[in-house]
Amino acid sequence: MATVDGMALGKDYATQECSIARALEVVGERWTLLVIRDALYGVRRYNDFLVHLGIPRAVLANRLQALTAEGILEKRRYQESPTRDEYVLTERGIALWPALRALGIWGREQLGGEPMRTFWHADCGTELSPHGTCATCGTLVAVRDIDMRPGPGLAADPADPVSRALLGPRRLLQPIETEQRGPA
Amino acid sequence: MATVDGMALGKDYATQECSIARALEVVGERWTLLVIRDALYGVRRYNDFLVHLGIPRAVLANRLQALTAEGILEKRRYQESPTRDEYVLTERGIALWPALRALGIWGREQLGGEPMRTFWHADCGTELSPHGTCATCGTLVAVRDIDMRPGPGLAADPADPVSRALLGPRRLLQPIETEQRGPA
Repeated sequence: MATVDGMALGKDYATQECSIARALEVVGERWTLLVIRDALYGVRRYNDFLVHLGIPRAVLANRLQALTAEGILEKRRYQESPTRDEYVLTERGIALWPALRALGIWGREQLGGEPMRTFWHADCGTELSPHGTCATCGTLVAVRDIDMRPGPGLAADPADPVSRALLGPRRLLQPIETEQRGPA
Repeated sequence: MATVDGMALGKDYATQECSIARALEVVGERWTLLVIRDALYGVRRYNDFLVHLGIPRAVLANRLQALTAEGILEKRRYQESPTRDEYVLTERGIALWPALRALGIWGREQLGGEPMRTFWHADCGTELSPHGTCATCGTLVAVRDIDMRPGPGLAADPADPVSRALLGPRRLLQPIETEQRGPA
């Protein structure tokens, strides 16, 4: 199992076997989960993660490598000359959405602030409940059926091109196109 | 805002204002979330966290202090001579259950292994669905109404007293009693 920079947990039975502990061994680090959040929003390219997250280059490279090794991201070549790769969420990665959504709900309810984004069932046009179901049809909405819309907490004129691309309503996982080049 | 050991995120707008990023600024670290998991299971005392998590003393002290500063744990004196404190989840801390449950579901479904614990609606005696509702009555079950039962992945004869106390069925948040003394 790939781990980030010497952060492995101890080999104690209780922490190793529990599903929560095993999940945290893989994704229990802020930058890792923020990279996955951005990938759910449609970010795929190294420079787009870089400017949107304000993440140090070495940390981003480490996290992308670890997430690829864990089968959460898949590296895909999108240009040959010069070579350019993008990072796309696998089904295993997409399955982290409920955990990230629950963290976001907690952050909003417990730490305050205006919502930056709201999430809607595309088929019904209904906002998702706090536990991720559609208030109209009652189904637990799949990630590919979720529309993300700007909320009142979103700045009107952000500096970076990814935040600008995320200003409008869009479907989760829809790839973001920016004018940025690949890694130098 | 209290942060753990120099792990604060950058001051970039996108990461600071998003509810997910704000939540991760507070709880986005494995040990922090494992301390909260144990507190949901009923662990309250320093030495009990210590033996159950196999966590270094300095890390545990730092996390308990940070979680208390954030209003996620509340420190309560339970003995005067010698003085002994315990750490009890606040409502803000209890509200993290859906996020931890979602991480556990992901760990079990994506990383494999037998369940160590299963979660049931106490009133109905029905196992919770993967999104935390009761299959019988359909309600999103509150933490205080959840029974935790041993699953097939649980070792029959664990070494530490907290794991032994967690062998049987019990209500979430029900305080664990062990023979261990407070911090030396």
